[in-house]
Amino acid sequence: MEKAYMLISCEVGGEQELFEELNEIPEVKNCIITYGSYDLVAEFVTENSSEMNQVITSKVRKLSKIRSTITLRVIN
Amino acid sequence: MEKAYMLISCEVGGEQELFEELNEIPEVKNCIITYGSYDLVAEFVTENSSEMNQVITSKVRKLSKIRSTITLRVIN
Amino acid sequence: MEKAYMLISCEVGGEQELFEELNEIPEVKNCIITYGSYDLVAEFVTENSSEMNQVITSKVRKLSKIRSTITLRVIN
Amino acid sequence: MEKAYMLISCEVGGEQELFEELNEIPEVKNCIITYGSYDLVAEFVTENSSEMNQVITSKVRKLSKIRSTITLRVIN
Amino acid sequence: MEKAYMLISCEVGGEQELFEELNEIPEVKNCIITYGSYDLVAEFVTENSSEMNQVITSKVRKLSKIRSTITLRVIN
Amino acid sequence: MEKAYMLISCEVGGEQELFEELNEIPEVKNCIITYGSYDLVAEFVTENSSEMNQVITSKVRKLSKIRSTITLRVIN
Amino acid sequence: MEKAYMLISCEVGGEQELFEELNEIPEVKNCIITYGSYDLVAEFVTENSSEMNQVITSKVRKLSKIRSTITLRVIN
Amino acid sequence: MEKAYMLISCEVGGEQELFEELNEIPEVKNCIITYGSYDLVAEFVTENSSEMNQVITSKVRKLSKIRSTITLRVIN
Repeated sequence: MEKAYMLISCEVGGEQELFEELNEIPEVKNCIITYGSYDLVAEFVTENSSEMNQVITSKVRKLSKIRSTITLRVIN
Repeated sequence: MEKAYMLISCEVGGEQELFEELNEIPEVKNCIITYGSYDLVAEFVTENSSEMNQVITSKVRKLSKIRSTITLRVIN
Repeated sequence: MEKAYMLISCEVGGEQELFEELNEIPEVKNCIITYGSYDLVAEFVTENSSEMNQVITSKVRKLSKIRSTITLRVIN
Repeated sequence: MEKAYMLISCEVGGEQELFEELNEIPEVKNCIITYGSYDLVAEFVTENSSEMNQVITSKVRKLSKIRSTITLRVIN
Repeated sequence: MEKAYMLISCEVGGEQELFEELNEIPEVKNCIITYGSYDLVAEFVTENSSEMNQVITSKVRKLSKIRSTITLRVIN
Repeated sequence: MEKAYMLISCEVGGEQELFEELNEIPEVKNCIITYGSYDLVAEFVTENSSEMNQVITSKVRKLSKIRSTITLRVIN
Repeated sequence: MEKAYMLISCEVGGEQELFEELNEIPEVKNCIITYGSYDLVAEFVTENSSEMNQVITSKVRKLSKIRSTITLRVIN
Repeated sequence: MEKAYMLISCEVGGEQELFEELNEIPEVKNCIITYGSYDLVAEFVTENSSEMNQVITSKVRKLSKIRSTITLRVIN
C-alpha cells in the first residue's frame, strides 16, 4: 500500500469546484479546504508506487483549477 | 469574535484596484498595500469562525485581481 | 469536531523519535515521515477549536525535536 | 505616522512568553498567536520611519524567543 | 535619499525584454539578470520614501513581463 | 566545464511534454519528473559559463510549459 | 533502481566538511556545492525505495552539519 | 569582472554586528540592513568567478552571525 499527501494551490475562487472533483477520484481518501499556506490538502492511497504516479499524473494534475502541487510521500 | 490576517499576492499592477475592493467589504477592518514578500495585508473580524470562512470563500477569493492568499487565524 | 494537518520540520536525525512521540498523543490520528519539503505530517482531530489550540500549544509544540510547524485547519 | 506588520517565527514552545513580551512594547498595537505559516503577527505604529527602525532593531529583534521576522511596511 | 532592492520573477522567456525596460527607468541604478531563486535584481534610488512608492506602483509594477516582486527597503 | 541543476515548476498537466522537450536539448544530461516541491529537475553540462547562460536563456526558458525555474550552479 | 536528488541546507561554514562526508557515502553518485537557494545538491541511487529510505534516515540525516533537506524522488 | 548579490538571514539581534563585519570585506561593495524577507543584502564584486567562490566560502560564510545565505549571480 502506498500513501501520499498532496498540498494544493488552486485558481483563486475555484477551491469548491476542485474540492468536488477531487472527491470523485477513488484514490482520494480524504480532502479538505484550508486557507493557510495551501488551499487544499488531499490524501491518496494506492496499491503501489507506480499506481500513485499514475493517479497524480493522469487524474489529479489534469484538473483544470489546480495551479501547483507538492506531493509528500510516506516513508515506511 | 473571530479575527484573521490575510497575506495577499495580487496581479501585478492591480494592487490599487484590489485595495479599494477590499475596503468595501464590511468585515475588512484594515487593509494596507506593502511591497515586501506579499502585496497587501488585510485584517478581518467576523462574529464567528463559520462567518469567517464564508467571507473568505464568497467575498475575498472571488475578487478578480487576487492571485494567492495565506490566511493566518488567531489562536485565543 | 475539529480537524487539522500539521506540516513539521524536525531536528535533522530526530524524525524517528519525534514520530514515536507524536503517535502517543491521543489527538494525533495519523502521522507519517516524509522527506519532501517537510519532514513529517500529522493529522489531528479534536472536539472543538479551543481543544485544538490546547493540543498544539501544550502537547505538540513542547516536543523537543520539533523545529517548526505549519498548521492547516479545515474549513467546513 | 508609520505602520508595519511583523510576521514572526519563534522558538518552538516559546510563543506564549514571546506574546507577552511583545505586548509590553508600547509601539505594538496588536499581537496574535497563529499556527499557520508564521507563529505570531504583530502590528506596530510609530511616529515615523526612523522610530520604526529603532523599535525593530532595539526592542523586537533583541527578544530571546524570536527566530526570524519578516516586516511588511505600509505603502501610503 | 531612499534606496531599495527589488527581487523580480518575470514571465518565463521575458527576462531580456524586462531587463531593457527596467534600464530605461531613471530611478533604476542597476539591474541584473540572474537565474537563481529570482530572475532579476534591480536597485532603486529615489529622493524620498513617497517617491519610491510612486516608482514601484506607477513605473515598475505596470511592466507587462513582471510576475511578482519582493521589495527590500534599506533601514538606515 | 560548467555544471548546473535546474529546479522547474511547469504548467500543471504539462510535465510529460516538457520532460520530452528537455530531453531533446543536448546540454541536458539528465532530466526527471518529481512531484515534490518542484515538478522536474534537469542537469546541464556546458563547456563554460557563458554557454550555460546561452542555453538557459535561449533554449530552456523559451519552452512553453515552463512556469518558473531556479538554477543551482556548481561552485568548484 | 531508485533515484533521488537531495537539496541540502547546511550549517553556515560547514559546507566543505559536509561535501566530503557525502562523497564517502556509496549511494551518493554526485554531490555539488552551490550557493543559491540551497547549499548543496546530492544525487542518490539505490536498488529500491526502501533502501533509499534507509540511506536518507541512517546515513545522510545523521551527518552533523546538515540543517535541513528536501528530497526529490524520481517518478518513472 | 564577476558580480553577485547575497540575501542574508542572520542571528536575530546580530544584524548590526554582521553589517559591520561585511563592510570590512574589500569585495563587498555595498551592504544594507533591511527587515523584509531577508535581513541584509550585500553586493560583491570580484575579478572572476573562482575568486567569488573563494570570498563566499572563506570570508562570508565564516562570519559567526550568519544563519543562511542565497547568492544571486549575474548572468551577462
